[in-house]
Amino acid sequence: MALSEFDIISQYFKKKYKHNTSIIAGIGDDAAIVEMPSDKFMAVSTDTLVSGVHFPKITKPFDIAYKSLAVNISDMAAMGAEPLYVTLAITLEHNDDKWLEDFANGFFSIANKYSIELIGGDVSRGPLSITVQIFGVVPKGQQIMRSGAMPGDTIYVTGKLGMAAYGLHMLNEGNDNIDKLCLQRLNRPEPRLDIGISLRNKATACIDISDGLKSDLSHLLSASMAGAEIEIEQIPFYNKLNDVDSDLRLSLGMLSGDDYELCFTLNNKFSVEIDNIRKEFNCEITRIGTIKETPGIVWNSKYDLSDEFLNSLGYLHF
Amino acid sequence: MALSEFDIISQYFKKKYKHNTSIIAGIGDDAAIVEMPSDKFMAVSTDTLVSGVHFPKITKPFDIAYKSLAVNISDMAAMGAEPLYVTLAITLEHNDDKWLEDFANGFFSIANKYSIELIGGDVSRGPLSITVQIFGVVPKGQQIMRSGAMPGDTIYVTGKLGMAAYGLHMLNEGNDNIDKLCLQRLNRPEPRLDIGISLRNKATACIDISDGLKSDLSHLLSASMAGAEIEIEQIPFYNKLNDVDSDLRLSLGMLSGDDYELCFTLNNKFSVEIDNIRKEFNCEITRIGTIKETPGIVWNSKYDLSDEFLNSLGYLHF
Repeated sequence: MALSEFDIISQYFKKKYKHNTSIIAGIGDDAAIVEMPSDKFMAVSTDTLVSGVHFPKITKPFDIAYKSLAVNISDMAAMGAEPLYVTLAITLEHNDDKWLEDFANGFFSIANKYSIELIGGDVSRGPLSITVQIFGVVPKGQQIMRSGAMPGDTIYVTGKLGMAAYGLHMLNEGNDNIDKLCLQRLNRPEPRLDIGISLRNKATACIDISDGLKSDLSHLLSASMAGAEIEIEQIPFYNKLNDVDSDLRLSLGMLSGDDYELCFTLNNKFSVEIDNIRKEFNCEITRIGTIKETPGIVWNSKYDLSDEFLNSLGYLHF
Repeated sequence: MALSEFDIISQYFKKKYKHNTSIIAGIGDDAAIVEMPSDKFMAVSTDTLVSGVHFPKITKPFDIAYKSLAVNISDMAAMGAEPLYVTLAITLEHNDDKWLEDFANGFFSIANKYSIELIGGDVSRGPLSITVQIFGVVPKGQQIMRSGAMPGDTIYVTGKLGMAAYGLHMLNEGNDNIDKLCLQRLNRPEPRLDIGISLRNKATACIDISDGLKSDLSHLLSASMAGAEIEIEQIPFYNKLNDVDSDLRLSLGMLSGDDYELCFTLNNKFSVEIDNIRKEFNCEITRIGTIKETPGIVWNSKYDLSDEFLNSLGYLHF
């Protein structure tokens, strides 16, 4: 039904399809046929990115493609799963050779980096949006759910928070002098796949921070039927957020998403292992609080925060 | 990132999630975790339906949902695969409780009919479109590819062609007196899953007719590196197409899609088995031509066709 779908697929996507003996049939039939490892569970996730909603309309096609796959790999990371295959549904206004070529280049630059094979897709005419579906595997029983956090567990986050949001904020303000690292984080986030996989059999719960720490931690807590006490001063904000006022700093660092760092919980008996993971992957991993039995989040802070902001946090301070 | 995504999922979709011991984790985590049967291949397909492109803007949410899953089940049918799981990515302009409730009802009415479990999804803000991803299984080696047709094989189609296109044509003409069966075919196509599965180890190639017979048969032929000779008078057109002129009849019946019938090829040693399948499923299955070694399609016809139409077929007559 999609106009020129077959031409688009064969010209830009099929030629980059690599040989893999587990792929019985890839792009080009009514469905792809693959052989999944029999000793593992399959992990499946899907995410849609809509132009003007999930990325600014000016975003380059390379970056749109990169991000659309990155956010799905991030979901695999949060489960401790290893991504294997991906399908791609593109809806675009009109065929634009240059756009498609750039998009395909962005897509394969990250797919190849993570050895993920594109096995199928669909190209439709319509307002620009991208839906990626990813399939991975995880050894049976080693999947990391959101629901396993226990009172007393320590809560960690990887990397720095607020980079992508700060980049978007600067972009929206029309600022020309934006830290390239922020734009990189906004447009080409790097999923914490190594960390997620290394947390198997260690983390009690894990989620990736796509919507912002407050929102994603809340999802983890409600899945775990638990609460948390968070030390705001411990949260590893992106360093340029020190230059802005407290409300904006915390809004960009805690209420905005798109960093794709991991937030996870750990029984303290594994805390030494976190040191090893930090060293092995040269990644900051910061303790920000503790899981509590009582639902809700207690935010401890010495910052001078406005009532408005505190309300937005659902602030509680003992 | 999607506004209210979690509310929408839990309110309309998660509650209808049924227990299945192969689903380790369904909706509500970063990814679903399922156990796939180890003795089968996995079949995966994805299709996007965009408002105003794949369905008229006036289409009811129940029908949009029904069709979005039906067309994906049809892809499984064309592979001889049995669908098991589905994920659903919805992009919609704004939250509308009634719309979502009707959509969910449509989705589960067909999902339950085919015992397919919804295991994940995404809800985004943006112009209305639906992307469904379906996963099925097929006994190893029994998948029916587009590529297996051999010279001498007979070409069959199931059911009647042109019903959906006739319905859409009448709708576009503003005709109030449209055969309900046509609208049903257009809005709630019934995938030929039983037939597809029963063709395992029999059909040499198969495709579902989503884009129209000419287009889909061409895909099958090019995958099989073969040609075909088709008897236009044998094609089972929807009976009301007899009331319109030849060009329109053939245009609606051969160049328009959305019927989701199957077109398949068969070695003649299995022709008696087709009688059994016809009887078992009470389904018309019609011989329309023969696979040839020479690429291209030879259309044999006694119809009085315009030069314009013949050109659109790439007509060749010996």
